[in-house]
Amino acid sequence: MSGEDAPAQQQNAVDQKQETKPAEEPKAEPPKTESAEAAATPAATTEKAPEEETFTYRALVLTGYGGYDKVKLQVKKGKPALKAGEVLVRVKVCGLNFADLMARQGLYDRLPSPPVTPGMECSGVVEAVGEEVTDRKVGDKVMVLNRFGLWQEVAVVPASHTFLIPDGMSFEEAAALPVNYITAYLMLFDFGNLRPNQSVLVHAAAGGVGIAATQLCKTVKDVAVFGTASASKHEAISQGGVTHAIDYRTKDYVEEVRKISPKGLDIILDPLGGSDTHKAYNLLKPMGKLITYGAANMLAGQRKNLIAVAKNWYHQFSIHTLSLIQGNKSVCGFHLGYLDGEMELITQAMNTILDLYKQGKVKPRIDSTCLFLQVGDAMRKMQERNNIGKVILTTEPMPEEEKKEEAKKEDKKEDKKKEEKKKDDKKKDDGKKEEKKDDKKKEEPKKEEKKEEPKNEEEKNEEAKKEEK
Amino acid sequence: MSGEDAPAQQQNAVDQKQETKPAEEPKAEPPKTESAEAAATPAATTEKAPEEETFTYRALVLTGYGGYDKVKLQVKKGKPALKAGEVLVRVKVCGLNFADLMARQGLYDRLPSPPVTPGMECSGVVEAVGEEVTDRKVGDKVMVLNRFGLWQEVAVVPASHTFLIPDGMSFEEAAALPVNYITAYLMLFDFGNLRPNQSVLVHAAAGGVGIAATQLCKTVKDVAVFGTASASKHEAISQGGVTHAIDYRTKDYVEEVRKISPKGLDIILDPLGGSDTHKAYNLLKPMGKLITYGAANMLAGQRKNLIAVAKNWYHQFSIHTLSLIQGNKSVCGFHLGYLDGEMELITQAMNTILDLYKQGKVKPRIDSTCLFLQVGDAMRKMQERNNIGKVILTTEPMPEEEKKEEAKKEDKKEDKKKEEKKKDDKKKDDGKKEEKKDDKKKEEPKKEEKKEEPKNEEEKNEEAKKEEK
Repeated sequence: MSGEDAPAQQQNAVDQKQETKPAEEPKAEPPKTESAEAAATPAATTEKAPEEETFTYRALVLTGYGGYDKVKLQVKKGKPALKAGEVLVRVKVCGLNFADLMARQGLYDRLPSPPVTPGMECSGVVEAVGEEVTDRKVGDKVMVLNRFGLWQEVAVVPASHTFLIPDGMSFEEAAALPVNYITAYLMLFDFGNLRPNQSVLVHAAAGGVGIAATQLCKTVKDVAVFGTASASKHEAISQGGVTHAIDYRTKDYVEEVRKISPKGLDIILDPLGGSDTHKAYNLLKPMGKLITYGAANMLAGQRKNLIAVAKNWYHQFSIHTLSLIQGNKSVCGFHLGYLDGEMELITQAMNTILDLYKQGKVKPRIDSTCLFLQVGDAMRKMQERNNIGKVILTTEPMPEEEKKEEAKKEDKKEDKKKEEKKKDDKKKDDGKKEEKKDDKKKEEPKKEEKKEEPKNEEEKNEEAKKEEK
Repeated sequence: MSGEDAPAQQQNAVDQKQETKPAEEPKAEPPKTESAEAAATPAATTEKAPEEETFTYRALVLTGYGGYDKVKLQVKKGKPALKAGEVLVRVKVCGLNFADLMARQGLYDRLPSPPVTPGMECSGVVEAVGEEVTDRKVGDKVMVLNRFGLWQEVAVVPASHTFLIPDGMSFEEAAALPVNYITAYLMLFDFGNLRPNQSVLVHAAAGGVGIAATQLCKTVKDVAVFGTASASKHEAISQGGVTHAIDYRTKDYVEEVRKISPKGLDIILDPLGGSDTHKAYNLLKPMGKLITYGAANMLAGQRKNLIAVAKNWYHQFSIHTLSLIQGNKSVCGFHLGYLDGEMELITQAMNTILDLYKQGKVKPRIDSTCLFLQVGDAMRKMQERNNIGKVILTTEPMPEEEKKEEAKKEDKKEDKKKEEKKKDDKKKDDGKKEEKKDDKKKEEPKKEEKKEEPKNEEEKNEEAKKEEK
């Protein structure tokens, strides 16, 4: 399925690549040894065997907070050592998540400081097992969930963070499933306690969590799903199970919901934060549950936008217990990234999800498959809400010819970048507002190259805000 | 069961009664016609048939906000008219709830302004049915749930607010069941989503909701119930199903819970409010649910204690969504009094509870049965947490001899009261602090008459705070 998209994407990548460095460069940077908690980023061992010295692998590395170009492809060497309970996974496909976008801007505190390899989920094959690992063996196809560190060709993780891929599931699906489906599942069935005949509002219904939530809602009898998305995505989300598709761009979604369900809703999943959380709270029925799981409203533009962040903080929802009591309401917060100590709970959820997959009741929808080199485009696509379903990265190396061509372009681009950087440096101290404008200047020319209908960056962000997660 | 307690209570009543007026007095006050929403307080009809004129019934009436003596027994006349969909119930037994205590102090906004008849639950027999009532008939034994107005011998309520009493359930049990069990059920199974192997903290485990919650927890496999109560009640609550009884008077309950369950708890039911809500929040596991359903900490002394109220407000729990997200936590508010528009939901819960009753899995525990005349003692008992289980009121009239004796004592007490009132009036303007001291002065002599171990009022309130709901 997603594999069919790959060639086109690769072609695209040749034209649009801009975030990577030439393959030679990274060698100058020694592989970083992460702290104990960062098991996912393989540490170089002190006593290297010959094979370990010659072992190299590519990794995406966040080199600093900022725009899409801050994630660079590097080559690391030295075979990572395995501790007891760990497995080494040869990564095939990685999933992109909203937290990765937040992390790149320095807005996600679960990712250690750069340089660091992001990535919360991937699929691959077990290549080595450490001591005391009894339930995984070399050759097992697995999906992996980790706090970070999975956007690389080789990842070392605790065996308990891996799940066997069921027969019939592709590596693409397996990389697209863990974060979105576990998130949607725990929100709907643990906090939400979803039951027949209830109503659910799913924002960004064409996004990864949105699609997963819609499918999971449909496993319960007579659940009405209210889904927001731009009009162009309504056909897709309706086919996916959304009962009432709402175009939040042209209509007030609160009014639209009230027209259909005057008493309000039983469950609202809120990835937006800020003033949308207030709206959600007021839209709840008695005994209703508001589950907030992000602050997508905080993301505006490529880099940290202090105005958007401040606005989100200013509007951040805060609730007194007296209001909850008088309304008979529930407010819950969820983020899988903060739940990494609860593998038992996560494994239970995963097992249920895999059962539903085997029954054909849930199936990840892949929007597009990008190469590691195209990670910038992949992130842009997600942030600008141009996807329907999951954006994934494949570790597949580029064909040799393309690599060479790529390297040439890369050199040219590097030169151009250096020029731009000089200009940038001059402007750097002109304050926050100035910084935002810079973003626009650098963005717009690139967009015009590839889009039929270029739009101004602010408009896009405005429109995109509620589209995807 | 509860009937066995009654004679002793009646004996008590003769000695301690102080809140009622002689039966003659109330006739001077005409029956009040409540607003449309107050269907429970029968309105006098404009065209009275002879029978309707001679029809009289006793009712407890809150005559103003304040101490226990503000609830007075009055006689009303005129048979209440029935609207379509309503039934007239001859009340046998009424339940007392914490909201009634709050209401008497003017701290519960679901009760209309005095004069008004309180009472959210009762049991009785249908004596007449209005038009369009198809599922109730004269002679049906029912329990009733209403926003207020059930502490009287005759109550008119929507038929949808009545539930048939199952075979084998006494009127006492039926009056003790609705509020406590529906509250505990919806908190645990709707908001709480209680599942096997989870842990629950039940404050005031010997109170009405506490006992109901404990029994309902035990219907789920391997649920650990942490229950707080004073040591003297530990045997009773342990027999009732509490796994870990904690004496909050001599120990820090947070520390005690952590010793047994270092990671915290899955569900916490919080009737206390204020700083205890903060403690509860911090005691939650990831994916834990805090369900707050009262502000018992606000009640200190007989009358509204502005210091306690202010303290509770000051410490009132307020939560930001970011904290919820990072903690993966849920905060819910519940109060049955604000849920009266949701009869379908309530009926579903009630049906499940009655099934559990029939299976012998839940059974209301009656602490004591008081006469209408003893309502002051009943309220005091509850507020001072001297009960294990439910305090109920029976409408049974007093035997004639007792009545006469009662009347004599009443006269004496009235005189004494008038004297005290004079003193009081002088002091009235001495400010809030002074008012609190007055309370103590009036309370203490009465207590010494009936208690073996007299205690200072403040100590009692302190101790009693977390005991019962």
